[in-house]
Amino acid sequence: MKHPLLLTSLMTLLLLSSASAGGVIDVSTFGAFPDDGKDDTLAVRAALTQAKTSGARKLVFPKGRYDFYPDMAFERYQYISNNDEGLKRIVFPIAGMKRFEIDGQGSAFLFHGFLSPFTVDASSGIALRNFSVDYARPFHSEGKILQVASNSVDLAISEEYPYSIENGLLKFHDGKPRKERTLYPVNALLEFDPVKRETAYRARDYGLGDDIRAEDLGNRRVRVLREKLTGTPGNVFVFGPNHRLVCGIVISDSSDVAVEDVTLYHCGGMGVVGLRSRDLAVRRMKVTSAPGKDRIVSLTADATHFVNCGGKVTLEDCLFELQKDDATNVHGIYVRIVNRVGPAMADVKLVHPQQYGFDFIEKGETLELVKGPALTTYANPVVKKVERLNKEYTRLTFTAPLPEQVEIGDALASIKPYPELTIRGCTIRGNRARGILLNSRGKTVVENNTFHTAGSAILFEGDARFWYEQAGVSDCLIRNNVFDNCNYGVWGRALIEVGAGITPAYRAESRYNKNIRIEGNTIRHFHPALLDMYCVQGLTFTNNALEKTEAYPQWKAGAPRFTVTDCDGVKLQE
Amino acid sequence: MKHPLLLTSLMTLLLLSSASAGGVIDVSTFGAFPDDGKDDTLAVRAALTQAKTSGARKLVFPKGRYDFYPDMAFERYQYISNNDEGLKRIVFPIAGMKRFEIDGQGSAFLFHGFLSPFTVDASSGIALRNFSVDYARPFHSEGKILQVASNSVDLAISEEYPYSIENGLLKFHDGKPRKERTLYPVNALLEFDPVKRETAYRARDYGLGDDIRAEDLGNRRVRVLREKLTGTPGNVFVFGPNHRLVCGIVISDSSDVAVEDVTLYHCGGMGVVGLRSRDLAVRRMKVTSAPGKDRIVSLTADATHFVNCGGKVTLEDCLFELQKDDATNVHGIYVRIVNRVGPAMADVKLVHPQQYGFDFIEKGETLELVKGPALTTYANPVVKKVERLNKEYTRLTFTAPLPEQVEIGDALASIKPYPELTIRGCTIRGNRARGILLNSRGKTVVENNTFHTAGSAILFEGDARFWYEQAGVSDCLIRNNVFDNCNYGVWGRALIEVGAGITPAYRAESRYNKNIRIEGNTIRHFHPALLDMYCVQGLTFTNNALEKTEAYPQWKAGAPRFTVTDCDGVKLQE
Repeated sequence: MKHPLLLTSLMTLLLLSSASAGGVIDVSTFGAFPDDGKDDTLAVRAALTQAKTSGARKLVFPKGRYDFYPDMAFERYQYISNNDEGLKRIVFPIAGMKRFEIDGQGSAFLFHGFLSPFTVDASSGIALRNFSVDYARPFHSEGKILQVASNSVDLAISEEYPYSIENGLLKFHDGKPRKERTLYPVNALLEFDPVKRETAYRARDYGLGDDIRAEDLGNRRVRVLREKLTGTPGNVFVFGPNHRLVCGIVISDSSDVAVEDVTLYHCGGMGVVGLRSRDLAVRRMKVTSAPGKDRIVSLTADATHFVNCGGKVTLEDCLFELQKDDATNVHGIYVRIVNRVGPAMADVKLVHPQQYGFDFIEKGETLELVKGPALTTYANPVVKKVERLNKEYTRLTFTAPLPEQVEIGDALASIKPYPELTIRGCTIRGNRARGILLNSRGKTVVENNTFHTAGSAILFEGDARFWYEQAGVSDCLIRNNVFDNCNYGVWGRALIEVGAGITPAYRAESRYNKNIRIEGNTIRHFHPALLDMYCVQGLTFTNNALEKTEAYPQWKAGAPRFTVTDCDGVKLQE
Repeated sequence: MKHPLLLTSLMTLLLLSSASAGGVIDVSTFGAFPDDGKDDTLAVRAALTQAKTSGARKLVFPKGRYDFYPDMAFERYQYISNNDEGLKRIVFPIAGMKRFEIDGQGSAFLFHGFLSPFTVDASSGIALRNFSVDYARPFHSEGKILQVASNSVDLAISEEYPYSIENGLLKFHDGKPRKERTLYPVNALLEFDPVKRETAYRARDYGLGDDIRAEDLGNRRVRVLREKLTGTPGNVFVFGPNHRLVCGIVISDSSDVAVEDVTLYHCGGMGVVGLRSRDLAVRRMKVTSAPGKDRIVSLTADATHFVNCGGKVTLEDCLFELQKDDATNVHGIYVRIVNRVGPAMADVKLVHPQQYGFDFIEKGETLELVKGPALTTYANPVVKKVERLNKEYTRLTFTAPLPEQVEIGDALASIKPYPELTIRGCTIRGNRARGILLNSRGKTVVENNTFHTAGSAILFEGDARFWYEQAGVSDCLIRNNVFDNCNYGVWGRALIEVGAGITPAYRAESRYNKNIRIEGNTIRHFHPALLDMYCVQGLTFTNNALEKTEAYPQWKAGAPRFTVTDCDGVKLQE
């Protein structure tokens, strides 16, 4: 019989099964040995089961490389807001645990295939420390630009990104024989500058659709047929995956979770996602592209993202670079009223498909009822009964009739205490889109960070018409940061801006964001526009050191420094 | 506010909520009215909830057409053996109910989109009666053959099958604007004769792959580019869906379920699927293509299929025609041993992807341990513990060590009492592939049926190398049937045959099927081969009336009437 390793690991597990209460478990006891190239998934699974059974406080990994494959992994259907739902295989399922730590001791965790690294669910007092996460075959693909013509681009594609041209279409896959292979589908294209290590100047997203027409030029050179592409030879075109199925670390319905000294080189979705959790800290995390490879991009989506969280959310001393979306976004979710079934009863819908299944409304809870296009709250109904119809629709019964003026398209959201958000000492650079999206109504402090972002460094968002993200800061201090030549990309009009979805007709009355103080920052800027704000109650911009540069060509010379409309209590000091 | 209908239905529901114990519920009480074109899904959902709460014995539908859409439907992740798993929307979820009947009173149920009609789960004493099932947009597509060239075929595609040619590829969809549309992907092609209402003479399955290269010829005419196609102008090419996601009636973990006087015009998978259930009867069911439409095919897969069932399984007085696979198959499942983890412990795998998640092994159960290539049982281990690792893998612990000779690739299956199978008075014709697959070890009687099948009328299967279907009859009587010119297609060598996956080297020792009596049948045959059998213990062919015809051209003149090898107790009487 094969697999003596499994035999060994099992027998060890049996020997250990009553040991380790409050103690430390070594993963090698379960048959996971570093650098042997073997699948360590089942050993981790056994170790976690043992840790839970015995109440161990820590699982440690002798330093080295560990490999993980999907075959024997834990499985669960997951709805991960702002990412894609699905039946996931998870290597580290940490569920229903208390006071437990995973210490990689500097190990490298290498994942193979559509395999999710970590889920912390219904747990508290969890720490994940000292490891890196990477994938043998990244979910995106890259090609070096050789030349660009009017309706095509020629790319050189490294062996890191196996592909075929079939039926005139470019297909990325894992390089296995056709019958066994896994496809790595992509549907978007974005240019990066590998020297500056950032998205190329003013590069925009190109949609490709599901079928990418292409010709094989031989020698791993491919001509992608698409009209109206621009690009600079020597730069890199990044093919973005058509999904966000594989997040790095998902934290759901948990509290007191710390992610420290972790490096995320890659995953096929967001890096750290907090859902309905409280007291989450990410410290000294590095999100960056894997060294020594033909790879410019780190993660394929946001570095971090927190939805309907509470307590304290802290990002400290982190590096977030080269990921394909924002460094963070902390917000709630609106559901849309789609049927008023009775006076005190309504069917609501999670609208954005990546929010399907994000159940957050609880019996007994007080909600805010919001006029959709204005984002103004006009009632606070109390929930008497929650009846989930399916991942999209929920039927809500309230303790009292809803106001007469309720309309289809109005929205409901939670008003549970919002998280206090601290972002301190972080560097955010080179990634696609914006720096940080500040959308928590809890006290928000952004200090001592460095921003070099393609879009706006800071965005205040929220809307009930497309993303359905609840936002609106109430106390936001932005101080002592360095803003280093942001806005070299297309994702934003100004350094700091409001992008809330408030229909212009309602802007005179809506004051969705409140008390934003921007002070003591150093702002090096080639782009003249610093603030573009509306519907803010209390906005000060004081004691900031401005330094004009010529780091990039002007793309909107003469743009006003401050565009501030429909705001009260404004103090702007250059 | 919109939706007064819902308001009405809800208030009615509230009024009714304590009524109806043991009584009859009328679906119109819940707001489902025939022929109004509105979505009746929520009304059915409310009615079923009410029926369950009140213990009603019957739900009736005033005769007419009812429409069902996915939006408000019940949702559940389902593993349906021999079909495709997934998160399904289900209109009639009948779960945990006893002694309950749905009577359509001759109504037509019309489904829109990827929406599953019926699931009966963990229930007993259920009857589904007097309705038809069809889909507004079928899951397959069809095109009339205009002409065939060496590397292409020109088709005329009716408006029933919306499509586009995009990037040189043929895409079937639901006809909605591109951003809202649902694709109806296909990957296979099969020719049907619309006059004879059957698969075309000797037509074979053509694989198309995921990308179907095609040119638009205008006026709903399309040139499909594929080499080595043959086809006759005037016949119909049927594009088969690349999935079996949408079955008609799924019966899982239930007992005493009857489906009577039901017509299935279409679904995107098998028609009736029984899983781990007992005492199932299908009577006077019609599986046929919808009249008055440009449609030749009925269902896209088997008409019925029963896996690991017990008690009595009965098919009586049914018509099964024009579906894209067999009329029935009654079998068990083998799992493959992939790791011997310890002396009394093994990891087993569900091998075929359409069996993933089909958990059938229970603690305390006795299994058969089978030599993979021989299908011979050499031990009967008793299960002490079942640990599901994920939908593919399960770790089994046994009460005693497994025999020393156990090898990777050997298989385990259930030996719980197998179902008594009766197939009586049915007509099976025109469908792709075979008639019936007899794979139950319970008493099997096939009598008074009429077969006009493209492949073998009757097949004895089972293997532990590809399908992993447990089979092997022990008492099988085939009598008084009419076999009317079968084998006009490519799916079979003889009228009645064994196709069990027993490696030739083991055939001398293996007697997988036992006691097959074929008697008193009327056999009209243009194809000379009547029996092709091996590894049978006890085979008689007596008192059958043979009539040679010239209904179709000979495709294997001189084929022997009986090919019988590695059998004992054989009596063949012409």
